[in-house]
Amino acid sequence: MRKVAVLGIGSTPFGVLKDKSLKEIATTACNEALNDAGIRREQIQAFYLGNYMYGFVSKQESIASMVAENLGLKKEIEQASFSGGIAFRHGWLLVASGLCDFVLVAGVEKMSDLPRETITSIIASSMEWEQQGKFYLTFPGYFGIIAHRYMHEFKVDMDAIHNVSIKNRMNGVKNPRARFRKEITLGQIKSSRVIADPLRLYDCCPNADGAAAAVLGPADIAHKYRSDMIEILGCIQSSGHSSLYAIEDPTTISSTMYAAKAAFSMAGLTPRDIDVVELYDCFSINEIITSEDLGFFKKGTGAIALREGRTEMGGDIPINPSGGLLSKGHPPGATGLGQVYEMVKQLRGEHENQVAGARTGLIHHQGASSEVAIVAILRKRY
Amino acid sequence: MRKVAVLGIGSTPFGVLKDKSLKEIATTACNEALNDAGIRREQIQAFYLGNYMYGFVSKQESIASMVAENLGLKKEIEQASFSGGIAFRHGWLLVASGLCDFVLVAGVEKMSDLPRETITSIIASSMEWEQQGKFYLTFPGYFGIIAHRYMHEFKVDMDAIHNVSIKNRMNGVKNPRARFRKEITLGQIKSSRVIADPLRLYDCCPNADGAAAAVLGPADIAHKYRSDMIEILGCIQSSGHSSLYAIEDPTTISSTMYAAKAAFSMAGLTPRDIDVVELYDCFSINEIITSEDLGFFKKGTGAIALREGRTEMGGDIPINPSGGLLSKGHPPGATGLGQVYEMVKQLRGEHENQVAGARTGLIHHQGASSEVAIVAILRKRY
Repeated sequence: MRKVAVLGIGSTPFGVLKDKSLKEIATTACNEALNDAGIRREQIQAFYLGNYMYGFVSKQESIASMVAENLGLKKEIEQASFSGGIAFRHGWLLVASGLCDFVLVAGVEKMSDLPRETITSIIASSMEWEQQGKFYLTFPGYFGIIAHRYMHEFKVDMDAIHNVSIKNRMNGVKNPRARFRKEITLGQIKSSRVIADPLRLYDCCPNADGAAAAVLGPADIAHKYRSDMIEILGCIQSSGHSSLYAIEDPTTISSTMYAAKAAFSMAGLTPRDIDVVELYDCFSINEIITSEDLGFFKKGTGAIALREGRTEMGGDIPINPSGGLLSKGHPPGATGLGQVYEMVKQLRGEHENQVAGARTGLIHHQGASSEVAIVAILRKRY
Repeated sequence: MRKVAVLGIGSTPFGVLKDKSLKEIATTACNEALNDAGIRREQIQAFYLGNYMYGFVSKQESIASMVAENLGLKKEIEQASFSGGIAFRHGWLLVASGLCDFVLVAGVEKMSDLPRETITSIIASSMEWEQQGKFYLTFPGYFGIIAHRYMHEFKVDMDAIHNVSIKNRMNGVKNPRARFRKEITLGQIKSSRVIADPLRLYDCCPNADGAAAAVLGPADIAHKYRSDMIEILGCIQSSGHSSLYAIEDPTTISSTMYAAKAAFSMAGLTPRDIDVVELYDCFSINEIITSEDLGFFKKGTGAIALREGRTEMGGDIPINPSGGLLSKGHPPGATGLGQVYEMVKQLRGEHENQVAGARTGLIHHQGASSEVAIVAILRKRY
């Protein structure tokens, strides 16, 4: 397997992008990534596009090829529409295997023009439904149950979990790509409405429109294109249980644990080597259990580490300096590549909310309840 | 890149499988492939499942992980839901790259319980819709236009195109996995109703339920599991135009042409080395133009080669001895793996409609109008 580098990145802001079509925002992010990489579009040998809900709502599938036409990519490339971070993982695989040199991976979602009921129903379709549908469990309910169990098991209160939202909203203030850029207080969170007990409005990531993209290429020739090379040291996709009733321990996401172990092993690193993390904080509770499952803190101590400031800016392992999904918003097809964008900016030392001296970073992306997790470890090579 | 072998195959019959759920038929095909390979399910490191319409109609996405649970696969494997033949291509990539040793790839579709209008609308969602939607073009119309152009360009009549259906239905008689197993006459075809002029009912592949699966592994250790090894010499996915208005020559599917050239080059073979072909005869006309685009016949001579008997059993290059999509039926998510199943049986010398002495075979799979084509070349190693 060859070493793979991220040569270019592009992203629209995440938020409400009413006046642009889905194809337009995807094209914008892709063009930015191509320009940033400084390679010609004729060099692109494959294009993978992540999207989740467009096919459901627009009667239009196969959008990868339409965006490729907008971009003026060559015809004879490999193309596919994937969901979320899977585009990144499989783009990496094409380059790592030696099958392709330059690959464009992107993700896009448009949610602001959809009724809320439609969004809820489409998102819930990613949950196991045969069993869980019986009691109308959707994602907020699922993570609410996990939060209850976590509090019971490890004797923490809900305030300790709300701290995730306070920290991430504070980080998001500096990020021009974040949907929400205002600090929030514990009081505001506690007086916001309950979405699924014990989770309140500010414990849940907001919907968003957005697109993000990256150009991947072989690390051994990356210096021809950029002086600051961001290398992908490890990239693993793993699966877990598809429903709550099959999970032995609801305070652990096994797919995250498996993917992290394998990614660290592939990279030849340990959690101590990581300077900065972008992880999937779809709900506040998920940042806490994920910070444990990734190996940064012992199980049951993530909320304490957060309270001690270890995961905030200036802490020993800053998590979600971008503001995370809780600030940026969550356009499902785009979020995985959005995390890549934020991390590459961090490792280049160019982030609006820069972690000083960050050289090695970890990205964690999750799909559905806990079926799929992707962990990638990136490092700046001097 | 490592050489990859097909170690095991499984398939349900294609047709109307009313009393079984989608997960059940997928599980059946997968279990058959695992048993056929003679490897233990704990050895499987990744599972890719192809499916097209289940998410639309059932409010249930993420079915790969549910089928994986049914199968009792390990939790910590890579899993994803893909469309059609892309599962095969990406499973191959995982083994070829050295990332995994044993991978299970499968495809499944359930159509018989859906109203025809729902099916038409879901299938049409794979066409480019912004332009083509204006004049309500669906797939039969698209291929009807191609048939008209082919007849005009190369001075053949519709009888020459109907011959595809006659040949494939005759082949399907012997295939227990085919939905339709009765010969049809030119008279029957010509008196069947017009679906989209000039295509009549028997020029169009029927819908079907079905599932098929294969176990892939490294060729260099395949002999430990099976004495008759089927090696994948080339496997390429390529893209083309997304809509009719962008195509320069409607009698050529450029994605097929690109994929075939690259697959032959990867395999180090030419069309003359191929003994048997399974290709994507979604409509009769598509077999003719594809037989040319794959390099077997000069452009414009495919219908003549067919009339001369060159593509029938006993001809120099038999096409679709399984009966093809026209006889087997077309469950979109399952068809690509169904083709793998038929081809592996041919190369093992165990097919119900065996091409004598077949050693090297080509599979062609197509997605949407012509956006995606996958070409794989398989050979039996003694």
